Amino acid sequence: MKSSKNSGQNLYKKAKKIIPGGTHLLSKRPELFLPNLWPSYYSKSKGCHIWDLDNNKFTDMSFMSVGTNSLGYSNNTIDKEVLLTVKKGNMSTLSCPEEVKLAEKLIELHDWADMVRFARTGGEANAISIRIARASTGRDKIAVCGYHGWHDWYLSANLSGNESLENHLIPGLNPIGVPKELKNTVFPFNYNNIDELKEIIRENPDLAAVKMEVVRSFEPKEGFLEEVRKLCTDNNIVLIFDECTSGFRETYGGVHKKYNVIPDLCMFGKALGNGYAITAVIGIREIMESAQDTFISSTFWTERIGPTAGLATLKEMEKVKSWEIITATGKIIKNNWKRMASANNINIQITGMDALATFVIKSDNWLKYKTYITQSMLEKGFLAANVVYSSTKHSKIILDEYFDSLNNVFKKIGDFESGISSVDNHLISDVCHSGFKRLN
Amino acid sequence: MKSSKNSGQNLYKKAKKIIPGGTHLLSKRPELFLPNLWPSYYSKSKGCHIWDLDNNKFTDMSFMSVGTNSLGYSNNTIDKEVLLTVKKGNMSTLSCPEEVKLAEKLIELHDWADMVRFARTGGEANAISIRIARASTGRDKIAVCGYHGWHDWYLSANLSGNESLENHLIPGLNPIGVPKELKNTVFPFNYNNIDELKEIIRENPDLAAVKMEVVRSFEPKEGFLEEVRKLCTDNNIVLIFDECTSGFRETYGGVHKKYNVIPDLCMFGKALGNGYAITAVIGIREIMESAQDTFISSTFWTERIGPTAGLATLKEMEKVKSWEIITATGKIIKNNWKRMASANNINIQITGMDALATFVIKSDNWLKYKTYITQSMLEKGFLAANVVYSSTKHSKIILDEYFDSLNNVFKKIGDFESGISSVDNHLISDVCHSGFKRLN
Repeated sequence: MKSSKNSGQNLYKKAKKIIPGGTHLLSKRPELFLPNLWPSYYSKSKGCHIWDLDNNKFTDMSFMSVGTNSLGYSNNTIDKEVLLTVKKGNMSTLSCPEEVKLAEKLIELHDWADMVRFARTGGEANAISIRIARASTGRDKIAVCGYHGWHDWYLSANLSGNESLENHLIPGLNPIGVPKELKNTVFPFNYNNIDELKEIIRENPDLAAVKMEVVRSFEPKEGFLEEVRKLCTDNNIVLIFDECTSGFRETYGGVHKKYNVIPDLCMFGKALGNGYAITAVIGIREIMESAQDTFISSTFWTERIGPTAGLATLKEMEKVKSWEIITATGKIIKNNWKRMASANNINIQITGMDALATFVIKSDNWLKYKTYITQSMLEKGFLAANVVYSSTKHSKIILDEYFDSLNNVFKKIGDFESGISSVDNHLISDVCHSGFKRLN
Repeated sequence: MKSSKNSGQNLYKKAKKIIPGGTHLLSKRPELFLPNLWPSYYSKSKGCHIWDLDNNKFTDMSFMSVGTNSLGYSNNTIDKEVLLTVKKGNMSTLSCPEEVKLAEKLIELHDWADMVRFARTGGEANAISIRIARASTGRDKIAVCGYHGWHDWYLSANLSGNESLENHLIPGLNPIGVPKELKNTVFPFNYNNIDELKEIIRENPDLAAVKMEVVRSFEPKEGFLEEVRKLCTDNNIVLIFDECTSGFRETYGGVHKKYNVIPDLCMFGKALGNGYAITAVIGIREIMESAQDTFISSTFWTERIGPTAGLATLKEMEKVKSWEIITATGKIIKNNWKRMASANNINIQITGMDALATFVIKSDNWLKYKTYITQSMLEKGFLAANVVYSSTKHSKIILDEYFDSLNNVFKKIGDFESGISSVDNHLISDVCHSGFKRLN
């Protein structure tokens, strides 16, 4: 850190008194990074840089706003269109034409899809796709794999015991406040475990939908996605791919295009608007038309910045082939992590799509090490932990600076692991949290 | 209409093929105004004017984007702040300080409230408040009065028969796609009918919350809101006021301030960001803290335009005392409707908060008359039906032009009513829809 002031932490202390949980996205909670020391709030963001409230400049080698900015913060090309929309008027009693154009574009990118509905958050897009699947089948039960947001339909999976979503969501989540009536409506299965899904279908012939992330931590086993598709087709189950996170990371559209497995519905969010709120459900006509039989409607789904940003983002992605850039960058990052871990005798596990690279050090001290990494990198001007969501703005120079700094940190961790020194003597912060936890 | 072209209708025909239901907010559906003729899409909006895709200029004497723009479209003061936020960066891995400032401001305006959570749509804010109420009480059942969005928890009220929400929502809504397990969790009561609420509480001692609009069509009967409050207090039920629509229309904050009845939780939306997506749940600490025990989290709740617009809107509202202006304007509109109806022997019923004025002509031909009004006013350059959401930009000159034009239309309707001529001979459009209906 460059300044001894930490106005962000002061503001965060105030925030926790008036905003339950402190932040509006759990993954942005300062305690998950560096309790009492994380800068917490920003004044400006540009490219892959962030300025905190004391005007300290950091390079973001972490979440890039948890996946929203694959073209970098405050991208000129997209912002130019957004500024124009603000000047022309963001709202009116009439609808904005941009929503139709964005729908056309998403259909063009996914030739299997016929219709589109938009929302402004991923949780909403998830809930819309579930409503449509239930409406079209007349059934209620859902099989899930992966993370699908905060809504009742999803969290109800934990009503039969808090561990159901342990491998999918964030550890420690109680389904408190979710109506108990929803117990046994949602059944999680593990990724790459087709037998678990078969078992769910056998026990619940009245399944409305299978909802899953196409890829998260690991590649699909050969035939896994195809088997899921076949099971859904054979049993008249709606197959929904949640590509809120995976979309536009490896292909120009859903990553399902890479695997050539086609869902009935598919959702996008995160990267779609490069930092502006826009999410989408796309799907085949037969199922999407069921949205006409049920009530799915919201005032703010008609604001104009979302689809404006979506259109501009897709255009810029196409122009620079962003999915190729961020995947190549992710590969470089993964290779360097591996190289540095090996050189320092660190037992590292690297997972995730290349553009969403993640590592864990296999050690009982992992959370302390993670804290130490964040603390040390912050001192060197990086926002960094164990996850890098790549953007097109992560240049070779920036990456090299990051690897140089991280290598020194890995060297120290090598020393900790071999007993030459102790991490406990080097931590100036409390150990970071590992998941959901009540804050004081 | 000034141009014989109707590019908006052409685009809308295309939209219906790729967006199920055509629009993203039911209330913006062109068929609810003027089937096949409504301009449907806008290119620009400013003050209380809207330009369609053929550059025809209209004066909005209707919904002002269904209540979002009480300071007028594209308000310079607010847009200036939004433009600055776009330039400084709309997103980052860190949170934006504006959300804390907006939370402080909302608490300042409502001295009974301690904590705040934000969302980006009204449906979300509703669902958050329900989750918090259920989490804090450990109970599931809810009594509702009024309109509270598209989510499962609310629509489930219709699972015991499609008419349950008939007086609250929009006629014709099936709860298709809402899990049947939620049947008998939500119980509607009619506004000003305290006995219905008492009955619900008697039959369901395990009620988590009463959720209601403070005012919609009619003023509360003397003692009604106080009795609701007392019933909730006596039975440990969370009282939630949904002020997404009523907020900032008559006071600087919730309209409950006028009636001096204090809820436990209260929601704002619509007018809060003057056309930019931002909604809020405010509440007392004891209950809001339950948000910490459950998972309520979304990526796009951390974007910066929403709270920026909220702060700028509240500042501008305070400066011009917008709630006084739009209430005075609404009174003038109501008085003129009454005067013109009386002069033309039209049996009119006028309802709604002054700033959300609504009329109905008591006649079997009402829907035809409504269509005729919209058709005739559109020809004269107005977007107008039977509802006016006032803004500070509805000047005396604009109102007078509106009354002049509407008076001629009322004169014709007087003729229709007295049998001098027939509305059927004057309609060039199909009759407008009256509610939810499948589109072809």
